[in-house]
Amino acid sequence: MSDVQRISGVLSPVVTPFRPDLSPDPDRFVRHCRWLLSQNVGLAVFGTNSEANSLSVDERIELLDRLVSAGVDPARMMPGTGCCALTDSVRLTAHAVKLGCAGALMLPPFYYKGVSDEGLFRSFAEIVERVGEARLRVYLYHIPPVAQVPITLGLVERLLKAYPEQTAGMKDSSGDWANTRAFLDAFASAGFDVFAGSETFLLRNMRHGGAGCISATANVHPGPIARLFDTWRAADADAQQARLDEIRAVFQAFPMIPALKAAIAHHAGDPAWTTVRPPLVALTAEQTGALVRELDEKGFAMPGLRG
Amino acid sequence: MSDVQRISGVLSPVVTPFRPDLSPDPDRFVRHCRWLLSQNVGLAVFGTNSEANSLSVDERIELLDRLVSAGVDPARMMPGTGCCALTDSVRLTAHAVKLGCAGALMLPPFYYKGVSDEGLFRSFAEIVERVGEARLRVYLYHIPPVAQVPITLGLVERLLKAYPEQTAGMKDSSGDWANTRAFLDAFASAGFDVFAGSETFLLRNMRHGGAGCISATANVHPGPIARLFDTWRAADADAQQARLDEIRAVFQAFPMIPALKAAIAHHAGDPAWTTVRPPLVALTAEQTGALVRELDEKGFAMPGLRG
Repeated sequence: MSDVQRISGVLSPVVTPFRPDLSPDPDRFVRHCRWLLSQNVGLAVFGTNSEANSLSVDERIELLDRLVSAGVDPARMMPGTGCCALTDSVRLTAHAVKLGCAGALMLPPFYYKGVSDEGLFRSFAEIVERVGEARLRVYLYHIPPVAQVPITLGLVERLLKAYPEQTAGMKDSSGDWANTRAFLDAFASAGFDVFAGSETFLLRNMRHGGAGCISATANVHPGPIARLFDTWRAADADAQQARLDEIRAVFQAFPMIPALKAAIAHHAGDPAWTTVRPPLVALTAEQTGALVRELDEKGFAMPGLRG
Repeated sequence: MSDVQRISGVLSPVVTPFRPDLSPDPDRFVRHCRWLLSQNVGLAVFGTNSEANSLSVDERIELLDRLVSAGVDPARMMPGTGCCALTDSVRLTAHAVKLGCAGALMLPPFYYKGVSDEGLFRSFAEIVERVGEARLRVYLYHIPPVAQVPITLGLVERLLKAYPEQTAGMKDSSGDWANTRAFLDAFASAGFDVFAGSETFLLRNMRHGGAGCISATANVHPGPIARLFDTWRAADADAQQARLDEIRAVFQAFPMIPALKAAIAHHAGDPAWTTVRPPLVALTAEQTGALVRELDEKGFAMPGLRG
C-alpha cells in the first residue's frame, strides 16, 4: 500500500451554479464548496449532479483552478474526469493530479453501448499510463441508469492487478445494494474503497467495510449525512439513517438536479441558483413551492448557508 | 425557403484513421474522404462510425481544418457537431459553418437520460441562437440504440416553427422504418430532409420523399449505394437494394466500426487502418479472416481505393 492518504467519508457531487448567460459562476461555486467543507463534506466536483458533462473540459479546468486558487484544499477533492474522448479524460485527470486532488472519479467512456470489458480496460489503462503519475488515485464510477456502460467485477479485478496503487476505489450509483455488496466482498479487503452512490446505503456500506458515500443530497443535507458517517457505530445510527432517508425521499420525488438548486436558492435567498443548463429544465414555481413546503414540514434546514 | 443549396444523396460517416499512438491521422483521413467523393458519396465526418465522441473538440476541429485546407469541398460535408456540453456543440457548429459546411449533424446532448422535449428544444435553440448564422443547416440525429435520447416528432415540430430555415432535416438511425416514415409523412412536404440511417432503408426512403441515406457501410461500399440513389426510379432498383443488403449483412455480423476499418485496411493494403480508440477493440485475426472471406465470396471490391 502507498503512503498517500486516501480520501473517505461523505462527498458531494457539487452542483454547478450558472450565470444568466449559462456560463459557470465561479464565485457561487467557491462559496458553496466552502459551505460543504464547513459541514464536513468533501468535494466530488464535476459529477452527474454537477452537470459536468454539460460543461466543456476548459470550463471544468477553469472552475477547478478557481477553487484551488481560492485556497480550497485539493486533498478534499475528487473531481469527475471521465469523458467520452480519451484525450479529454487524460487532460482533465492530469490537471487534477497536478493540482493535488485526492482522486479522480471516472465515468467509463459512455457514448458507445455494449462495449467489452477489454475495451474499457484499455480505456482506463491508457488514461493511467498517459497521466503517468504514481500519486493518481482512480475511483471508477458505476452509474448504469445514466451512463449505461457498467463497471463490472471483472474489470475492477483486471485494473487492480495492472494498477494496484492507482485503482483506488469506486462509486456505485446502481441503486442496487446487492451490487455494492458484491464489490465490497470482492475487493474491500484489498484496500479498494467503495463509496455508495447515495446516503440511502451509507449505513449498510459502512457496516460492510465501505469508505463512505458520494451523494447528490449531500449538496443540501451535508451535516446530518456527515454525522452518520462519523457515528455509524453509535446506538442511534439506524434512527439517523431513517431521518436521512426521509429527507432524501422528498428530493427524489422531483427532478434531482433542479430540485437541489431550487432548495439552495430558497435557503440561501439567492434565486440565481435555480439556473440549469439545457437539456435540464428548472423546476416550475409550483414544483418549487411543493418542494419547499414538504421540506419545511420535515423541519429541513441548511444551517450557515445564508451569508 | 432559402436559396442555399441543400445537401442530399448518400453520405458516409467517415471512419477516422489513427496513428499507432492513437492520435488522428489527417493524411489517411483526407485520402479516404477524397476516395469517397470520387465514388459520389458525401462526407458526414464525425459521426458515430467516425468514433467522433472518442475525439476531443480540438481534434475534430483540426481534422476539419485539414480537410478544407486540402481542398476538399465543404459543400459536400455534414460534420457531426452535437456534444454533451452546450459550449462544445456551439464551438464545433460555429466552426463548421464558418468553413462553409453544408450542414451540421447534431446528436442531442446524450449524457442525461429521460430528459424532456422542452430541455432538448432549449438545447438546440441555444446552439442555433449562439451560432447566429442564417446559413446554418441543422440535421437532427436520432440514434436511440446509442444516444438513448430520442428526437421526437414533437421536438421537430417545435424546432421547425422556431427555426424554419435552420431546421433542415434529420438522420434516422432507429432502424425502424415506421419511425422514418412517420417523420417523412409529417415533415417532408415542408422541405424537411429525412436521411435514412443505413442503405437498408434507402429505396423505401426515396420512394417516400426522403433525401438519401447516411450509412456506415458507405465507407466501404460507396459506389453501389450512390448508384441506387441516382437510379432509384430504374427498373432494377429492387435488385440493387437486395445486393446492397447482402453486403451490409456481412458487415453487420461483426462489430461495425472495427469491421469497416478491417475491410479498408485489407483492400487498401494498409494495416494501419485497423487501429481504433478505446473503448472499441479491433477485430481479431480470426474475425478479419472471416470478414474478408465472406466479402470475397460475394464478389465485394473497393475499386480505386489502393493507391
